[in-house]
Amino acid sequence: MTLILNNDEIQKALDNKECLDVMEDSYREQAHSRAVNRPTCHSYLPHSLPNSTYSFKSVDGGVGKLGVLALRVTSDIVQEQQLHGSTRLEKIPLAKGLFVGLVQLFSAETGELLAIMPDGFIQQVRVGVTSALGMKVMARRNSRTMGLIGSGGQARAHYRFMTSVMPIDKVKVFSPNAEHRKTFVAEMAKETGVEGEPVGSAEEAVTGVDVICSATNSSRPVVQAGWLRPGMHYNSIREFETDMAVLDRCDVISIHTRFGGIQHYQPPGIEDDMPGVRREKPRDWSKYPEICDLIAGKTPGRTNDQQITFFLNNVGTGVQFAAMGYCAYKGAKKKGLGKEIPTEWFLQDIKP
Amino acid sequence: MTLILNNDEIQKALDNKECLDVMEDSYREQAHSRAVNRPTCHSYLPHSLPNSTYSFKSVDGGVGKLGVLALRVTSDIVQEQQLHGSTRLEKIPLAKGLFVGLVQLFSAETGELLAIMPDGFIQQVRVGVTSALGMKVMARRNSRTMGLIGSGGQARAHYRFMTSVMPIDKVKVFSPNAEHRKTFVAEMAKETGVEGEPVGSAEEAVTGVDVICSATNSSRPVVQAGWLRPGMHYNSIREFETDMAVLDRCDVISIHTRFGGIQHYQPPGIEDDMPGVRREKPRDWSKYPEICDLIAGKTPGRTNDQQITFFLNNVGTGVQFAAMGYCAYKGAKKKGLGKEIPTEWFLQDIKP
Repeated sequence: MTLILNNDEIQKALDNKECLDVMEDSYREQAHSRAVNRPTCHSYLPHSLPNSTYSFKSVDGGVGKLGVLALRVTSDIVQEQQLHGSTRLEKIPLAKGLFVGLVQLFSAETGELLAIMPDGFIQQVRVGVTSALGMKVMARRNSRTMGLIGSGGQARAHYRFMTSVMPIDKVKVFSPNAEHRKTFVAEMAKETGVEGEPVGSAEEAVTGVDVICSATNSSRPVVQAGWLRPGMHYNSIREFETDMAVLDRCDVISIHTRFGGIQHYQPPGIEDDMPGVRREKPRDWSKYPEICDLIAGKTPGRTNDQQITFFLNNVGTGVQFAAMGYCAYKGAKKKGLGKEIPTEWFLQDIKP
Repeated sequence: MTLILNNDEIQKALDNKECLDVMEDSYREQAHSRAVNRPTCHSYLPHSLPNSTYSFKSVDGGVGKLGVLALRVTSDIVQEQQLHGSTRLEKIPLAKGLFVGLVQLFSAETGELLAIMPDGFIQQVRVGVTSALGMKVMARRNSRTMGLIGSGGQARAHYRFMTSVMPIDKVKVFSPNAEHRKTFVAEMAKETGVEGEPVGSAEEAVTGVDVICSATNSSRPVVQAGWLRPGMHYNSIREFETDMAVLDRCDVISIHTRFGGIQHYQPPGIEDDMPGVRREKPRDWSKYPEICDLIAGKTPGRTNDQQITFFLNNVGTGVQFAAMGYCAYKGAKKKGLGKEIPTEWFLQDIKP
């Protein structure tokens, strides 16, 4: 049978510790030539809405030990909107008011399609889990306090997983909306059992903490290099929320993946005439080691308590979706969650 | 609703003339910057069977006018086998004895997943239709006879579609197994109403005909350059079944796509140590025009009846799957074919 899951079922199916263990193991496999990643590709078509483009993104990757390969796709209509004088890209939910993003899990043993699930919850978990694993190999072992910037889905996953890998006993949270950060802290403290404190500025959130985490969708730096102090670990989930001056202040730097170069495909001839296509060129991060090599012990992480460490949890990879898709699939099977449809619907006797 | 189709339903859903019209229109759209292709990517993982590799292939492409983008994936276990002293790659049906290849059709208007269908029948149709369209713009208008090499699924599609675009009244067919070619000719003559004749050699098949078509899975040339005569059109579906000397004999040459460079991804560090991965580097075809430009009238095809023309229908594209997937989807909806599952299963409220 092929399993169909929704986000609620995935949330119930996933076990936090197992997510961390399976992802950690997958990075070790990757570091030892037993996992594969195919970089993200975007395909674009003109859309009938003003200033809009249809955007189809795909990435895949697999882990031999888990016996799976995951394909993640998103199918979005992206609109350029003007807000306070700057241009932002907004995804428009035209699919009955909802969004389309899927993780498809294939067996690398038989080829079969094991499961189809939305990517929304997994997307948050895979980023949070990777940040937590980065913290585990880079932050001071006696880290106890964290400053978190953001109160969205990603911030939620980061609160959850970064407080799981070290005995953090307090998280200071800043996000621009006072009501949001208050509600967020109350919910996350209840879920994790780790005390939280909403604070009034980003600087206040990071002052005096051991670990800083920015988990926003900002295109401008949210943490200033001058705020970093000896012994701190800083985790960022987007290169454009990172002040480049941070790099000069840090002693040990690692990135998630060197596969930063997303490949963009547009109808030939109108490459410069499509709204909704990101123009920012990613920076070149290829001189920094990938976190999988730190996790596997192939590259040293922090070597003393005075160092400032920085992990840029940049572009996602197929291996992350394979690892978290595997956890969701196994967990759902164990707990009897989701809907099943015949695998035979996705098989054929015509030889390729 | 999201439509689930099988190969039989797709065969019933497709109308030959509509396939030709929609594909022709899609190539015109492509030639005028209104369609997009993302090149094929292969991802590989080690497999537990001897000399075997798990191979996941994906390609996507869309056509604005049709309002769809198609993603085609295959999920195969490929084994290196020794046969008569040479190495061949064999796909092993480990999914309950069957194969896994899917075309997923997404709406480029709303983003929704419209349909999931196997790629087997569509794969044959998309190649046959493209060869037929190539013949339409390159072969002599008074072509009446055809020599066909091959008697498999691709040969079937080529018999069907190449006899549809010109009034061909006879097809001579060679394939190594006498019984196969006899049965094949009987079936195809009955289906198309165009007379066929099984013959004993490739040379006999192509002697005296107006159009030559090789539709085999051979890795060695099956048509010799010396067999070509003034006025002939030659169609090949694989660059490795083509004798390179053919190029010197031909006056007008076109290829399907310049996207010949399939991108291969293997676990880093073991790139040279995976069985089942094709080592042949594709030749550089980038100096030849793409067939879409001939179809759209942007590049001249044949200009007199003495020229020898050659169309290499090389690597597939996402646009082909979008066009044929669209025809299958529309045809099935019209005829009430296939199974429906709720589209909501593939939607979510978590914003990407």
